Amino acid sequence: MFDLTTLTEPIVQAPLAGGPSTPELTIAVCEAGGLGFIASGYKRADAVREEIAAVRAATERPFGVNIFVPTREPADPGRLLDYLRELAPEAARQGVDLGEPRHEDDEWEGKLELVCAEHVPVVSFTFGCPDAAVVERLHRAEIAVWVTVTRPAEALEAQSAGADALIVQGVEAGGHRGGFSDGDEAGELGLLPLLRLVTRTVPLPLIAAGGIADGAAVAAVLCAGARAAALGTALMLCPEAGTSDAQRTLLSEPGATRLTRAFTGRLARGIVNRFMLEHSASAPVAYPEIHHVTSLLRAAARKRGDADAFNLWAGQAHELALARPAGELVRDIGADARRALREAGERLSHAG
Amino acid sequence: MFDLTTLTEPIVQAPLAGGPSTPELTIAVCEAGGLGFIASGYKRADAVREEIAAVRAATERPFGVNIFVPTREPADPGRLLDYLRELAPEAARQGVDLGEPRHEDDEWEGKLELVCAEHVPVVSFTFGCPDAAVVERLHRAEIAVWVTVTRPAEALEAQSAGADALIVQGVEAGGHRGGFSDGDEAGELGLLPLLRLVTRTVPLPLIAAGGIADGAAVAAVLCAGARAAALGTALMLCPEAGTSDAQRTLLSEPGATRLTRAFTGRLARGIVNRFMLEHSASAPVAYPEIHHVTSLLRAAARKRGDADAFNLWAGQAHELALARPAGELVRDIGADARRALREAGERLSHAG
Repeated sequence: MFDLTTLTEPIVQAPLAGGPSTPELTIAVCEAGGLGFIASGYKRADAVREEIAAVRAATERPFGVNIFVPTREPADPGRLLDYLRELAPEAARQGVDLGEPRHEDDEWEGKLELVCAEHVPVVSFTFGCPDAAVVERLHRAEIAVWVTVTRPAEALEAQSAGADALIVQGVEAGGHRGGFSDGDEAGELGLLPLLRLVTRTVPLPLIAAGGIADGAAVAAVLCAGARAAALGTALMLCPEAGTSDAQRTLLSEPGATRLTRAFTGRLARGIVNRFMLEHSASAPVAYPEIHHVTSLLRAAARKRGDADAFNLWAGQAHELALARPAGELVRDIGADARRALREAGERLSHAG
Repeated sequence: MFDLTTLTEPIVQAPLAGGPSTPELTIAVCEAGGLGFIASGYKRADAVREEIAAVRAATERPFGVNIFVPTREPADPGRLLDYLRELAPEAARQGVDLGEPRHEDDEWEGKLELVCAEHVPVVSFTFGCPDAAVVERLHRAEIAVWVTVTRPAEALEAQSAGADALIVQGVEAGGHRGGFSDGDEAGELGLLPLLRLVTRTVPLPLIAAGGIADGAAVAAVLCAGARAAALGTALMLCPEAGTSDAQRTLLSEPGATRLTRAFTGRLARGIVNRFMLEHSASAPVAYPEIHHVTSLLRAAARKRGDADAFNLWAGQAHELALARPAGELVRDIGADARRALREAGERLSHAG
């Protein structure tokens, strides 16, 4: 089974579902000695099978596949309807219809079958904890199971289910909050305290995620108890990434981010834009319903380059992202992390 | 002028105004090789003079004094009045009157005169940036000037004013947000990205603050660009601290924190309790007015041990705080930081 200590760089690619993820990015991260990921979210299992084949054709290194755990509860119909009314003019503005507010499971069973059949080295889960039977099924296929957590109680639950490692996501992270419930924004934990609290709670290997964009930050999370750092936004300007041009421009500049449910019905961090400002207050807890509702209008806005009308997922350190080939970035960030550790150690030993 | 590299431990005591701060705590941190602080906030200059004398009588080590920068704008009278009406039953419940909603400057000029006359080694500022003339005046008295910042733009402003170092406060921190304005909670930055962004913005020495409670977290912020870590909540269980018994109990247990204006009219992080849940939504931006309004009722609740009715300031890692003498803690956290750096470096050099 996959062992984190076999990576030559302590770097894991965040899955980046919904556009930026490409097999080319996965391959580049793997070949540089990190762990690349394939995002299965929002995709058909058949399409994911093709991506796995593309990655395997180009690299013999281990890689991971990320799977969304289905939301149990459908959205409140009344609040959902109110929000659909509010969004109708947004769809009209983009010249499209609103999508159907479907509650579905992102082909959960099909994806589990796929990763087991393919004996993918690592499968990570977002939006919930797979139950112990699912974890066992993956273990029988020699798959290492990682679970995304955002608080110590979730770490305990993941450990009970049999997880092999935890992705510990701080509030700084871009994109969706990956924890088990779409909860109270005000209680979300910063990465450093979260790492320290989870380290004291479970003995599992931890992968730190959220606002990590350079070697110094990687060194920091390694000191704080992580075995590796997940890079998401930091890889979105790479030529291998499928990031839209409008988003590339905004990512590379200073600009505030915040958490919002406006685009998908689930809290996610992105660069502040008009759509977010106008709809965050009224957006209900309704994932994946709202994701489907806004899917067409976001795609249309993205195509037109109307950056005020689609989701600009970004972590808090987005302006530090660099437009360089992913393999170079992974190796340089690894080297910078080693240097940051050495220099901090030297400064401290000379203190006083 | 004071030089951070002369500390034997990379640890600075957060000022902890409003109760936990005592000369005994300041002395213990200084004697252990860290930098102790005297909190001048909410106190008369005469009382601060006595604390400076007490610290100097017990230690020859350098120490700091923290001063609140006055808020320029008085609160909106209408919103203030509405909130006073809402709080009236809280005062009645504690058997006291609401205080006067005074807008005052916490004896700003008197405290500046005091620290200059005393040639205090370090003066740090919270709630704003002293203007260049004030910084110059302190520099003429050989005082190192530190300014608390919560975003890169504030770091630039502090640099322009002549600051010698910056306290970089992440959203994880307990107590008041120390930045220049009482702004938008949703835009607050986590400590790690904030450190990386500020490091790229100004060349000043940085002191990291927010959710740091153990040596591993200290090591982390040193890797991320800080020269030292500020410990606040982590010292509140020390016998030298003036923390109330009710708060000591709650600090040492797991428990969610959040930001609120309910107690003082300015965003501050504390353990979630009834008062916070009932009043956060309606509390206006009105510091120091609301601080004075709730002062008596908070004191009465604290005295009665009614932990649901006073401010339980705490950072996100509060449950890691230890009830040990401050000097021991500072030395052990320093030793643990060295070990965390060494171990992370070794793990990384053996990777692959």
